[in-house]
Amino acid sequence: MYSRREVNPMLRGIRVSPQWALQRRSEQITALLQQGEQKPFKEVIDISSGDSHRTGIKPISFVRQVLSVCLYPELLHDDTLPVDVRQRAQRLLGECDGGSVGSYTDSCGLPPVQRSVAEFITGRDGGVPSYPHNIFISAGSQTALKVMLKLLVRGKGVSQTGVLTPQPYPHTLPMLLEEVGAVLVPYQLSEEQGWALEPGELHRALTASREHCRPRALYISNPGIPTGHVQSRKSIEWVIQFAAEERLFLLVNEVYQDCVYGEGMEFMSYKRVLFEMGQQYSDMVELASFHSISNGIMGECGLRAGYMELVNVDPAVMVFAKTLLCTDISAPVTGQIALEIMVNPPRPGDPSHSKYTQEILTNRITLAQNAQRAWEFLIGLPGVSCQPVTGGLFIYPRLNLPPEAVEQARSDGLEADVLYSQSLLDEEGVCVGAGCEHGQREDKYHIRLCVLTPSATLEKVLACLGSFHLHFLDQFSQHA
Amino acid sequence: MYSRREVNPMLRGIRVSPQWALQRRSEQITALLQQGEQKPFKEVIDISSGDSHRTGIKPISFVRQVLSVCLYPELLHDDTLPVDVRQRAQRLLGECDGGSVGSYTDSCGLPPVQRSVAEFITGRDGGVPSYPHNIFISAGSQTALKVMLKLLVRGKGVSQTGVLTPQPYPHTLPMLLEEVGAVLVPYQLSEEQGWALEPGELHRALTASREHCRPRALYISNPGIPTGHVQSRKSIEWVIQFAAEERLFLLVNEVYQDCVYGEGMEFMSYKRVLFEMGQQYSDMVELASFHSISNGIMGECGLRAGYMELVNVDPAVMVFAKTLLCTDISAPVTGQIALEIMVNPPRPGDPSHSKYTQEILTNRITLAQNAQRAWEFLIGLPGVSCQPVTGGLFIYPRLNLPPEAVEQARSDGLEADVLYSQSLLDEEGVCVGAGCEHGQREDKYHIRLCVLTPSATLEKVLACLGSFHLHFLDQFSQHA
Repeated sequence: MYSRREVNPMLRGIRVSPQWALQRRSEQITALLQQGEQKPFKEVIDISSGDSHRTGIKPISFVRQVLSVCLYPELLHDDTLPVDVRQRAQRLLGECDGGSVGSYTDSCGLPPVQRSVAEFITGRDGGVPSYPHNIFISAGSQTALKVMLKLLVRGKGVSQTGVLTPQPYPHTLPMLLEEVGAVLVPYQLSEEQGWALEPGELHRALTASREHCRPRALYISNPGIPTGHVQSRKSIEWVIQFAAEERLFLLVNEVYQDCVYGEGMEFMSYKRVLFEMGQQYSDMVELASFHSISNGIMGECGLRAGYMELVNVDPAVMVFAKTLLCTDISAPVTGQIALEIMVNPPRPGDPSHSKYTQEILTNRITLAQNAQRAWEFLIGLPGVSCQPVTGGLFIYPRLNLPPEAVEQARSDGLEADVLYSQSLLDEEGVCVGAGCEHGQREDKYHIRLCVLTPSATLEKVLACLGSFHLHFLDQFSQHA
Repeated sequence: MYSRREVNPMLRGIRVSPQWALQRRSEQITALLQQGEQKPFKEVIDISSGDSHRTGIKPISFVRQVLSVCLYPELLHDDTLPVDVRQRAQRLLGECDGGSVGSYTDSCGLPPVQRSVAEFITGRDGGVPSYPHNIFISAGSQTALKVMLKLLVRGKGVSQTGVLTPQPYPHTLPMLLEEVGAVLVPYQLSEEQGWALEPGELHRALTASREHCRPRALYISNPGIPTGHVQSRKSIEWVIQFAAEERLFLLVNEVYQDCVYGEGMEFMSYKRVLFEMGQQYSDMVELASFHSISNGIMGECGLRAGYMELVNVDPAVMVFAKTLLCTDISAPVTGQIALEIMVNPPRPGDPSHSKYTQEILTNRITLAQNAQRAWEFLIGLPGVSCQPVTGGLFIYPRLNLPPEAVEQARSDGLEADVLYSQSLLDEEGVCVGAGCEHGQREDKYHIRLCVLTPSATLEKVLACLGSFHLHFLDQFSQHA
């Protein structure tokens, strides 16, 4: 029989992540609770991922109304639904082959969705033009990133493609790089400076990497995943110069672009800064920018859609990108429709405008207030430090754990932050993310919490975390 | 700048398919018609793909009603919707984290969907048990097939994984094999015997392949894509024996299992036959079976969901499959819900049962009648032969083209069936698939037509095809 040791050797290194193990544990606990087992808690609260609906954030009504009409067009005649809902559904259905969301779309997505995305980007970037033929609709940002990585990968040994990757990184990135056969080249973000990118460190990482691979791309996430750091225009300019000098392809994850709430902060896209730096850059630097409906305020993870904008990419290479997206066939049409609404929401004067705006605003306020509240609470705990967050969905506190806890984890074959997260889950029914998933320096432990959750849920989580934390410290001090 | 010659060498061989070029041409013609250009036809009819909604086949109401309620749960209170629609939606929403289809699911899909699929298979296979943990929900059968292929691929040169592949094959298969780095090992189906699989030919292909690769898997599609051939139990038994003797992993595409309409024919799954052959086979032969909501009677291509059932696969290998599916994140929840309904339709006594049954039956009858009608028409055309079809969505006639047409095509750098299809599109606005996409022996030309389309549309297509065909023959005879 085909056994583990016969599996494609390129994939054999892929391991079940600690996060996956934590989520399985969380499901097992939920199953036990449902079978009537007594625990000190009634349900598991999972705030480990940026999946805000999971813990009770409500979907945006307009998105769901339009989708329900598109799926069941009889609702076009339902007068209880706002007229702009029905008009939007009718327009989008008119763009689907045979008037059905059940038809395949082009591998790059429905043309009207590409057009709306291009208009959205042009508006967002103060008029820097975006063109529909550079927009690739995909089943989420990760699918599109995988396509670009596949195209960039080549060579073996010292000529193998290296991708400069921030540490901490989005937890799915290492597996993706491994799957396509790229070398992860880490550059450390500066926690002390609020997780900012340090030019000297990026230079160091690039130079060091040349001994074992050929760095061809630079991956950035802005706002940072999971750090929440929002890059300044100056920092972006520096990165673009660096990419130009070193001929690096920029892969920029901008999925949290609508989640910037730090005072006086605003999101600035790499594309905009690139074009405002003048032709010597805007004609040359290759850039792929990723966005999706999953992350951010809308939180429609389950519908699966996102887009990639390519800038300065050789048209022959774009043909490959289209063809590869094609082997995954098109993104789900329901997701594409949600994306169209995200980039082209109801306008002032439309019947749904005020409700839409209000719902988005409510989520934004919840996010900003929760981030502040969580930060204040966390820095009050002994042995916890936390950089202020200014964007994104996560807060990423650092745990200064007792040596006895670290020792215990080591003897259990775990990272200390995994031991911490497991214990928190077992004792309090709260599931957080373990920092080791994001790559971290030795003995620097973190946990990850999604703060886009109803405020009452956050309060419950913080209360559990607070009492658990003290108990955990205490336990390992007694132990010593 | 990153140019074509720098693209991952493994992918550089991927070419734009003739089908893609035909569909672009079809879109251009549509755009010209919309701009008011005069043509001998008012619109393009595209029956090249198995995308039945595109040409007007209607979705199944129950599927769409449940989905609309899941997306917009306010509709739970809409009394105009049947009660079983609302009950089903409520139950499925209850299984989604946070009660929202906007939440991620497990990478293998929602557990209730896995359970319903396993029950469906058990029922279909006369009680041969199927287990939810062997069911992997994916964003379509192709995504799951790619995961399995990735796992099976290894080695270089003579040890590189070869996949025995029927010729004609599903047109997306060569690109998929190329992308993952597997060697396509063709075995020719026998057109003269209604596209049946010939044991001798499979032996020949296997033996010959050993000179340049290591055959590790055997790909089958039953009912055949695009041939429509339905395999007999005896033929399946032979294939299973062959796979057992040669230690081949069976990759079985069974997406057309609900489209068998040949008189006295029935679909027999590989899994069922395997288990009915006794333990010496059922404990040993490794099998992956694929099904989806896209193909077949339901035709929900745009919603993107399918499943793979693994049999006799090492649990350690299954963990890899789960992890790889995970890098694509979960299948869209809307698609998963449609899948749940496909495998678990309304039952007798349910308010929606009669309508659901009627709609499915209507599509089935349309399919069977159209297939018969198309076959009778096609064999009446000079220079056309066609095997009777007994399953699937396509009819796949062979064209005996004048040598002058073949010559003309050659000088245009095209296959003769592409020239034929292009001319048909240009002159009559009918888009069919060109046989060369499926791999064919030299000078054996075919076209592919989807027959699941409204009967009136089929009549229009046949009329256009008939007059075009005579004109095409005539043109090249005059030429000579």
